[in-house]
Amino acid sequence: MNEKIENSTINSALFTDFYELTMAQGYWKNDMNQDVVFDMFFRRQPFNGGFSIFAGLDTLLDAITDFTFSSSDIEFLRQQKIFEPDFLEYLKTFRFSGDVYAFREGSVIFPQEPIVRIHAKLIEAQIVEALVLNHINFQSLIATKTARIWLASKKGAIMEFGLRRAQGPDGGMSATRASFIGGAAGTSNTLAGKLYDIPVMGTMAHSWIMAFPSELEAFEAYAKLYPQKAIFLIDTYDTLRSGIKNAIKVGAKLVEKGYNFGVRLDSGDISYLTAEVRKELDKAGFPQATITVSNELTEEIVETLVQQNTPINSWGVGTHMVTGGNEASFTGVYKLAARFDKTSGKNIPAMKFSDNPEKNTNPGIKNVYRLYDEEGNAKADIIATEDEKIEAGKEYRYYHPMIDYRQFTFTAAKIEPLLHKVVENGSRIEAKQPAGKVIRLAHETAQQQLETLDASYKRILNPHIYKVSLSKAMKNLKLDFIEKRIK
Amino acid sequence: MNEKIENSTINSALFTDFYELTMAQGYWKNDMNQDVVFDMFFRRQPFNGGFSIFAGLDTLLDAITDFTFSSSDIEFLRQQKIFEPDFLEYLKTFRFSGDVYAFREGSVIFPQEPIVRIHAKLIEAQIVEALVLNHINFQSLIATKTARIWLASKKGAIMEFGLRRAQGPDGGMSATRASFIGGAAGTSNTLAGKLYDIPVMGTMAHSWIMAFPSELEAFEAYAKLYPQKAIFLIDTYDTLRSGIKNAIKVGAKLVEKGYNFGVRLDSGDISYLTAEVRKELDKAGFPQATITVSNELTEEIVETLVQQNTPINSWGVGTHMVTGGNEASFTGVYKLAARFDKTSGKNIPAMKFSDNPEKNTNPGIKNVYRLYDEEGNAKADIIATEDEKIEAGKEYRYYHPMIDYRQFTFTAAKIEPLLHKVVENGSRIEAKQPAGKVIRLAHETAQQQLETLDASYKRILNPHIYKVSLSKAMKNLKLDFIEKRIK
Repeated sequence: MNEKIENSTINSALFTDFYELTMAQGYWKNDMNQDVVFDMFFRRQPFNGGFSIFAGLDTLLDAITDFTFSSSDIEFLRQQKIFEPDFLEYLKTFRFSGDVYAFREGSVIFPQEPIVRIHAKLIEAQIVEALVLNHINFQSLIATKTARIWLASKKGAIMEFGLRRAQGPDGGMSATRASFIGGAAGTSNTLAGKLYDIPVMGTMAHSWIMAFPSELEAFEAYAKLYPQKAIFLIDTYDTLRSGIKNAIKVGAKLVEKGYNFGVRLDSGDISYLTAEVRKELDKAGFPQATITVSNELTEEIVETLVQQNTPINSWGVGTHMVTGGNEASFTGVYKLAARFDKTSGKNIPAMKFSDNPEKNTNPGIKNVYRLYDEEGNAKADIIATEDEKIEAGKEYRYYHPMIDYRQFTFTAAKIEPLLHKVVENGSRIEAKQPAGKVIRLAHETAQQQLETLDASYKRILNPHIYKVSLSKAMKNLKLDFIEKRIK
Repeated sequence: MNEKIENSTINSALFTDFYELTMAQGYWKNDMNQDVVFDMFFRRQPFNGGFSIFAGLDTLLDAITDFTFSSSDIEFLRQQKIFEPDFLEYLKTFRFSGDVYAFREGSVIFPQEPIVRIHAKLIEAQIVEALVLNHINFQSLIATKTARIWLASKKGAIMEFGLRRAQGPDGGMSATRASFIGGAAGTSNTLAGKLYDIPVMGTMAHSWIMAFPSELEAFEAYAKLYPQKAIFLIDTYDTLRSGIKNAIKVGAKLVEKGYNFGVRLDSGDISYLTAEVRKELDKAGFPQATITVSNELTEEIVETLVQQNTPINSWGVGTHMVTGGNEASFTGVYKLAARFDKTSGKNIPAMKFSDNPEKNTNPGIKNVYRLYDEEGNAKADIIATEDEKIEAGKEYRYYHPMIDYRQFTFTAAKIEPLLHKVVENGSRIEAKQPAGKVIRLAHETAQQQLETLDASYKRILNPHIYKVSLSKAMKNLKLDFIEKRIK
């Protein structure tokens, strides 16, 4: 392999579930390749949380605007012996030619809201299903997890250290990207640092200490080489009896020369050890020396340590942040919302029913609006029909998506439409921006939107549930469907 | 982007934790780039299980024998302003030139065993750490999860359907590869089907049914197109009142023409519904018609259904299989085992101590042997020193790695060495094989080795713990270290 492969953008149209292709042939042969609208939405907040962060949009758009069936892809399909030559011929020039609407990357999102809306020919809309779900589900999971850890740390300095435990090479790359959007300040993943312009960080490994005859010599060699960023790993042999003592010895010389220093703890009882280490540092006259901790941190552990006022300056978080830990997937789904009817010239709403009422979909082409009060606090998101106008300063009644007796009226001081057209006729509307700029903007969007959200929704444990309600027209459209179904 | 990117082999040497590079500069400047040996091993079985399956070796070898620092990689490092020009110059021609020993891909593995052993210059050994852990940790997690599901199904037909919930694009590709090694029979991931020569499978989506005026018409259109592989999804509207009835109507015509048919259930109470559906199919005279189920399956759910004799012919498994579900990472670590000493001309064993005795490493260059009894059952794995010979037909005493009073003697009928040299001086020893051949071999290795393992070790819940013991020389070497440390 000679070309340089740095990222894992896959541009083969075969990156799709096989049934999409068998169904596609069916639609194609039955002349059913009409215009349709699909929604991506998710069903419940991960981690029993109160919010999620939308991530993965820009990498999705790279994929969706670029993928094709190569001649070897077509040959592979031919070998399956169920595709007809004329259909394979059609695939040769196939590409996505539809429109994509989406929330801004980094947005705070809630269940049931269409966060991505695809308008395309039925076959195109189906073939991109796996792409849409794969990119958005994973990156949103990780951005959300990171935002939770960042909030638990009281907006502290979170470093992402997860590469070695991530789910495969790109599981590492995508996770680093998403964790930066969610609130991480830097990463140990050097390649992601380069590709996404994320600050790269790192201290030293236990093997560094072990490679020298003594811990002291290891610290001295490091301080000589990197006086401006000396963070000594102090738990290789014995944190309190040797690690912190050697760190102070070497750190003192750095301070004399006008530098600062820090220590890192990667094992043991963090609460007890950081307190003891802080005492030693202060006693030696180094209140400015920093303490970094790592070792299987979760938002719950971080929150507990912060609540106990544990003296920690920064956090190295790996496994749980880049995989989701005990929850490794996001519940995003992709469902038909409407299809164009040639006879009437109109988009006909479609609704999926389920024995579980919470799995009934919201029919038709939808927009989503965020309502703010006069202080700029987000109060509710409203799912409305496409042509409906919801205006600031006017009172409307809004409806719970399932439970009839839950309604409320509200006059919003500001109304923000959340879905924006980002792809038209298969091409990005705005020119592609550098990856680093895109994730910085998404990072800011996340931080700014989290700011508008009441603390009760951001609680780690048992958060308050943010309202996602239906407009009157949306509610009536849904009830129409139920009426017709019962008849 | 013009070149076709189909897989996510990343060949940038920046795919590493940043501290490896800062440490590397330190080793380089301090003339410490000596020969070393690192072990990858894991600490505990995932999923509270009794075994794991080793996967990810071949993709790791692709990466390890191929990666380099490109000129843009070097430029990125230069911009960090902490690397000196002569070190960056050295990186320009840097590549892995060491040796790799590993278990055969697909092997059954146990904690503490060195499953990959790297002999290289210190800098090379450190820079590949993230690569080794990233590939092996994730793929072993997924191969293990799949093997558990496959065993729970009594070696049934498992189809991997996880692409849309996988952790990023490559999370999908790597997971499909690993799940085939672990026991899956096929995948919905079309691109993985092409790249790894795995059978691609799929039925129809709910959207297929919804795209037609009626369920019956949707089934008829499908049967006409794919009479040889008609599996009707019967839960779109109402499984028992319409789905199964329409499936039987259309299936009957297929059977008349000499085909078989099947149904798939993707929601509701699987136990109840499959029993009812089986009754309907049998009553209609189609005992050969198959039932496939999907919907958030885990090994525990599969096992329960099988124990209840639920009439299921095949299983579609997604989210939990491709992410690990409630356990999203594998506990593999990478530790220094020995370093070459110029003065003595010998490899000096290294041992890492920890306050947690189970985190003490086994020092020195090690081999691993599997002991079999006369019936071919695997009885124990032995970690031995490099130069030690353990022979079949001879009685030896073996030692628990931590607990003194646990020892046993055993005369093995057969002894299998488990570590094999696969890379020498940076190149594969055997020519690279086609990806499909490699995973078939690994799949067979897994199935054959699981066969030699007593059922008690393969239990889903509370399995028996397989013995991983130390040889006498290994035990003595470890005790020597402890002696020295206490002195």
